[in-house]
Order: sequence, then structure tokens, then C-alpha cells
Amino acid sequence: MAKPWATLGIDLHLEPAGGGVRRGLTDALRDAVRTGRLAPGTRLPSSRTLAVDLGLARNTVAGAYADLVAEGWLTARQGSGTRVADRAVPPPTRRPAPSPNRTGRPAYSLVPGTPDLASFPRAQWLKAARRALTTAPNDALGYGDPRGRVELRTALAGYLSRARGVRADPDRIVVCAGFAHGLRLLGQILHTRGERALAVESYGLDVHWDLVERAGLRTVPLPFDAAGTGLDGLDGTGAGAVLLTPSHQFPMGVALRPERRAAVVDWARRTGGLILEDDYDGEFRYDRQPVGALQDLDPDHVVHLGTASKSLAPGLRLGWMVLPPSLVDEVRALGGSAVAALDQLTLAEFITSGAYDRHVRAARLRYRRRRDALVAAVAARAPEVTVTGIAAGLHVLLQLPPGTEQSVVRAAAWQGLAVHGLSRYRHPRAAGRPVDALVVGYGTPPDHAWAGTLEALCNVLP
Amino acid sequence: MAKPWATLGIDLHLEPAGGGVRRGLTDALRDAVRTGRLAPGTRLPSSRTLAVDLGLARNTVAGAYADLVAEGWLTARQGSGTRVADRAVPPPTRRPAPSPNRTGRPAYSLVPGTPDLASFPRAQWLKAARRALTTAPNDALGYGDPRGRVELRTALAGYLSRARGVRADPDRIVVCAGFAHGLRLLGQILHTRGERALAVESYGLDVHWDLVERAGLRTVPLPFDAAGTGLDGLDGTGAGAVLLTPSHQFPMGVALRPERRAAVVDWARRTGGLILEDDYDGEFRYDRQPVGALQDLDPDHVVHLGTASKSLAPGLRLGWMVLPPSLVDEVRALGGSAVAALDQLTLAEFITSGAYDRHVRAARLRYRRRRDALVAAVAARAPEVTVTGIAAGLHVLLQLPPGTEQSVVRAAAWQGLAVHGLSRYRHPRAAGRPVDALVVGYGTPPDHAWAGTLEALCNVLP
Repeated sequence: MAKPWATLGIDLHLEPAGGGVRRGLTDALRDAVRTGRLAPGTRLPSSRTLAVDLGLARNTVAGAYADLVAEGWLTARQGSGTRVADRAVPPPTRRPAPSPNRTGRPAYSLVPGTPDLASFPRAQWLKAARRALTTAPNDALGYGDPRGRVELRTALAGYLSRARGVRADPDRIVVCAGFAHGLRLLGQILHTRGERALAVESYGLDVHWDLVERAGLRTVPLPFDAAGTGLDGLDGTGAGAVLLTPSHQFPMGVALRPERRAAVVDWARRTGGLILEDDYDGEFRYDRQPVGALQDLDPDHVVHLGTASKSLAPGLRLGWMVLPPSLVDEVRALGGSAVAALDQLTLAEFITSGAYDRHVRAARLRYRRRRDALVAAVAARAPEVTVTGIAAGLHVLLQLPPGTEQSVVRAAAWQGLAVHGLSRYRHPRAAGRPVDALVVGYGTPPDHAWAGTLEALCNVLP
Repeated sequence: MAKPWATLGIDLHLEPAGGGVRRGLTDALRDAVRTGRLAPGTRLPSSRTLAVDLGLARNTVAGAYADLVAEGWLTARQGSGTRVADRAVPPPTRRPAPSPNRTGRPAYSLVPGTPDLASFPRAQWLKAARRALTTAPNDALGYGDPRGRVELRTALAGYLSRARGVRADPDRIVVCAGFAHGLRLLGQILHTRGERALAVESYGLDVHWDLVERAGLRTVPLPFDAAGTGLDGLDGTGAGAVLLTPSHQFPMGVALRPERRAAVVDWARRTGGLILEDDYDGEFRYDRQPVGALQDLDPDHVVHLGTASKSLAPGLRLGWMVLPPSLVDEVRALGGSAVAALDQLTLAEFITSGAYDRHVRAARLRYRRRRDALVAAVAARAPEVTVTGIAAGLHVLLQLPPGTEQSVVRAAAWQGLAVHGLSRYRHPRAAGRPVDALVVGYGTPPDHAWAGTLEALCNVLP
């Protein structure tokens, strides 16, 4: 049914592919806007007129217009009809989505998982690195203890005990190159022990599920309900271990309730199971003292995993595991620590000098202010949107009206704002009804871009 | 046949276990020396006298004495009989071997695999680190390109092309946390591709074989003969890939002959196989320009693996792979680079500033002098020992009289010298007759200990 679209002087070839005529029209119009064939500000014919021209039902055209308004390509105002949106950034020449400006990068980012990198304490880190390099014994430059440097393990034991209530002994700590590296090692060990499944939460990171599955373990999602991740079904999963974010579920933002914390530890004791506690942002709680680590309930059945990726920067590739005694030798047997000794000594110096605490305090204040501003702005400007999750961490969940997630994400992309929908964090085999939501990483922007980023977000929220 | 050994006033309980009476006597005497029951300098009864006392054949006693002399526990000099050796270091109280001094560490080490850590260029490295940290863009602190920072990949491409004849393109380089990390990634990819075996050399490192086997690939040793690793049998191994040290076989010390280099590349082309080129010490050749990398013969079938572990220090955890185009995406899919971005930028700065070349030149001179001194000392003082292998790298093979390897290693341990026998580098399924030899890592000691270490070595050589 290809037909020239004479009204606007451009060829609009409608191929009713899998998505039907409405989708075909939407795609064709979007493409015309994207490539500049429809200039910003151009007034489109009314849906009735275009429907007649194209031989389509009026609802089909109105629906396509509505989609493109939601995506930000078109604007619809009372009295001025439907127009091509004025773009903040020039259109790209090729492959625009999801980053439609000329540099290929969105102007703003609320993608979660990264702290404000501009506030990384470079001068203090360099000072610690200098001290580490000048005082390191020669053997620090060799192949070392597979668990990592004792200086760092000792510093971490003190810090984790004080800040997170972890029962930590330097002998049971293994330094790793970030959380993913630790998880990979644990997956390998579980597989060697004969495990073939790992229970995971319904929402999380696909890169983690992928690496677990590469280690030979199926990931079995646990149900998620209003009270958080459900653990009653653990026995039925066939898994001998479970991966949890108990202090601050990623990305749903809730804390695991006390009775569920107790239940999962009971399960581990009863079955000899293992709990992998991903404590990725435990330092950041804004309304109260952080809930202590789950590991404290049973250090023999919980592996506590922490990271400097949120508190400092992912680029450091520094993480740690506090292990049950039975696991220490198995991790050691997998080979040497993958982390440069000088980096380990630098972090040890950074912690023992007090620089780490100072940095975390300043970061906590910064992120708390951002979260407060975000919550207030959403309440004022997007009443259909609900903020959920505890006041903690570097991200928040914004629940959207049903059916709008994809169009909001696309609209944001068009406005130069990178933001992720909840659906990409949903396990492919998760049960229960999907929720439309944005996972907003308010820690990501640098300070100078924060106001603009928040404004860009509010502009695309329904 | 327990019988008090009245002559020396100690009980010497001889239990003829699996090893026979001679072994039992040797063990009992060694234990008496080790624990101090036989003091240094003590003169032992003649073998004839002791044989009579113990009711043993004289040859049995003479053999036990000879073993213990070879091991360094006893000394035998014309005219002064057999005595308990004077020890350079005090005896330990428990579990002495292989580190018999009080600190639990040998006084000297010739264990291969580590360069002289005392000569690590700390000031220059710190300078490069400062520059890297102050000039790094913020995004260097985030999750980055899984291949690693482009600054380092670009610097490596230039260096490898110039120094090793590698055909390198920054897009085909992946930075990894040392050789073992790269090998693990490749093992995982080969397994995913359906490979179930990796051909390896008869001599190498068990930690590498172990990690390949953990990835699900059998290691199949290729024969080793006077001309080096034999490649004729590759087709029969069932392996789709082969791991080689073509420039300087570790630990045998030979270079792969040109016709064998050509043959293995032919094999790879004919079968679609993959060659993993472990170029661990390619910078260090003393008698001529280094032989260029095998990778140059066929960049589509050779993975070139390099490391800063020998040229700088293992504690940096920095290595790299130059990959055939077909492998780049598979390696990327395995996740982010495990190496801290600041370390990558530091090495990039270190290379581009010329500091790397200067350091390698100085190191080459240092190690060449050590090797020359070692070769001269062995020729002068241990005529039964043959130095084999090309003038390259940080280690040399000392071929020993048949049957003496274990006792020389033990004697060295007793003298406070850690040195490895060749047998620990032999693949458990290697064919061919084992050779008695020491693998001497002359790069390991700091400069101030070199003379003492060489002296300790000469003292235990037959």
C-alpha cells in the first residue's frame, strides 16, 4: 500500500509490517523528522485530513501522532495543532537512537550504576597513591597472596565492621576487581561444587545473570511483590545459593524486610545454602542509619560483596568479598588476585587515613540533596508519577502510568537524556505483571549538569 | 628393626618403609640434623663403623651419606671424614623444607617468573601516574570500553609494532589483568566455540594448564625434542588451538625454529586453528635482535599475548592481547576490562613518554650481565652442569647429571636458596624421558643480593 504523501511533499512509504499500519505510519513519520525531511516547527495536517489522504482510519493517524508526541518528536498544543518539535540538539545523520545528538552521546544521563565521576577525589587519591608507592615493600610488586594485600584486607575489615556491621576478619577477605569479578569466582566455585542453579531477584542486572550462566548455573528468578523479593519458594528452585541486594534492592529500591532477612538465613542454615549479599551502595542511606549487613546474621552462610564502584568510581575496578571460612581456600585456589597491588595499597592508605570516610560523607550529602530535589520536582510537575523505594543509594524508581515506559524512554532519548526503563532490568523468566517505570540514577550527572538533567527529566515525564 | 644408635647418643629408629632401609636411614639422619640433635660440625662415624653398629650393609650407609651430602646436610672432605654441615642460617623449629631459615623465607631466590622488583622504576611510574590522574577525562573513571582505554591500546599498538614486529591495530587489542587473565578469557571462548582440547608444550606452567582445564578444555602436551616443541602431531590431538612460547620456550629456553614456526601457521590456516603466542619476555634478547612475533606471520590465526609482568612487575597486573578480528567481539562480550583505568592510562603515559623503552634498555643490560656471570660461574665451578637455551629472558636451564635434580633442589633449600627443578614444569602427561635440570630465574634477586645468590647456587651444583 505504498502511496506518496503529497500533502507534505515527501514520500511516505507505508509498509504494513509486523507492527501493523499504525506502527508503519509512526516509523515513517519519525524517520521523516529524524532525517530533517520534516523540519522543526512544521505544522502537520490534522489527523482527519491525513487519514483521508492516506486512505487510513482516523484513529490510526491519531494514534501515530500520539505516540510521536509521547516520544518527543511532535508537539500537540491546543490551538496550534500538531507540529514537529523544536529540537534541543541537531539531528544526527545516521543511527540516531538512543543518542540523537551529533556527538553520539546524550547531553544528559540518568543511567544508574555510576556515581558522579566529576567528584572523584583526585588529589586525595593521588596523595594516597604516592604514599603507597613510596612505602610499598618490593614484594608488593610481585605475585602476591591470592586474597590480596594484607594491608587492604586489614583496612577493609575495620571499615566494614564499623560502617556496615560486617563480621570481618582480614583472613576471610578476598580483594577482587569489582563485584562482577567476585561473582564470577563464586559462580565458578558453586559450579565446581556441583550446583547448577543460582536463585536471583526478579529485577537486577543482565550482565550479572549472563556471567553466572556462563559459569554453568541457571539463574532462577524469585518472585517480587509489594514487600520485596519473596523467599518462600527458595526450596523449590533447586538452587543451593541465592544472590540478593538486601540493603537496597537494585533496581526496585526497597530494603529486604526483617522477617525475610531471617527467613533466608534460616533457609541457608537448614539446607547448607549460600547467600551472596550484593552490598553495592550500603554507604548511602539518607533517612536513618543504614541497615547492617545481612552477613552479620550468619557469617558462615553469607558472602558479603562490596565495591568501591559506587562510593568512589567503577574505573578503579576494586571490590571485596568477606567469605565463610569454607570458601576462602576455594577462592584462593582459583588463582591470584586480579587487582594491582599498588591500587590495593592506595585504597588501604585512603581508608586508614580517613580520606574514604570524608569522601563518603560529602558524597552522601550531595546525593541526598539530589534525591530530595528529584522527589520534590516529580511531585510538583509529574503528579501521575510515583517515586518508590527507600531514601538510599544513587537511584530511584519512578513508576509511570501503565503502557508509557517505552515512549517516555524514547522521548527522553530524543531530548538528549539517557534514562533506562525498568523493563531492561527485569529477568526474562520473571513472573508477575511488569511495572512501567524509570530507573533514575541521580548520582550519575556531574554537579554542573544536575539542574539541567533534572529539568530534562521533568520535561519528558507524563 | 628399631635399634638405638648408641654411637652418637641419639635414638635412630629405622623403619624400613616403602623406600627401603637406605631411605629410612637417610630420612632419620636428615631429621636428626634438621632438629639440631646432630649439631653442625659434628663428625659422623665412618660408614663402615655405622654399618656395623646398625647391622646394615656398608653400601647402605655410604649411600645415605652421599644423598645427604648432595642435599647439603652433610659435608664430606678428604681427610676430615663426614660431618654435619655448617649452616648459613639457623635451623627452623618445624616444617623446614623448602624454606629452612627462621623467617620461613629463603635467604636467596632464583625462582623464575619475577623480574628484579627492587629495580622497578618507582619515581618514573609515579610521575606517569600523576600525569594520568590529572589529565584523565572523567569518563575514564566509569565503566569503559571492554577492550580497555584507547590511549593504552594506541600506545601498545605502536610499541608492539616497533619492538616485536606485531601487526597491531588498537581496535584489535584488549587490555587484560596479566597473561593468565587473557588465557582464561580465551579458554572460555574456545569452550563456547565447542573446543574441548588445547595443545600445549610439554614444559610450561601448571597454573596455566589448570586454568585452561577449569575452562573445560583438556590440555594435550606436544612432544619436546632437541629442536624444541614438535608440531607434527597437532592434527592428532583433537585440539583446535595451541599455546606456545615461540620466542623463548618457557622453561626450556629454546626459540622455535623457523621451519616449525611456518609449520604451525600452516596448520592453523589449513584447519582454521588458533595459535596462542605467549610472548612473556620478548623484550629481552641479548645476543641479537629479538626474533619477531609469530603473530606477524598470520594475524588472523595468531593471538599475541604480552605482559608487563616481566618487563616491569607482576604486581601491576597488566597484560594485553592482539586478536584476530573474529575474536574481538567474543572477548568484548565476556565483559568489561578487569584493569583499573588509571593504571591503563599510567602505562600509556609510561610508554609514550619513552620511560618504558628506557627502563627496558636498562633492564636488558642488567639481566644480560647477570646471565653472563652465571654462565661463566657454572662453567668454572660446575663442569658437570650444562647451560642450555638462547641468550634471552630472565631464566636459564641448567642441565644436571641424571638423577640429581631433587637432591640439588633440597640441598639448595637447606642452604637458604629457593630454586626450582625442571620436573615441576613438566606436563603430567608429557611423553619422552624427563631431564634433570634447574630452571634458574636470574632476574629474581635484587642487585645487592645477586653475588650472594650466585655463590649459593654454585655451592649446591654438583
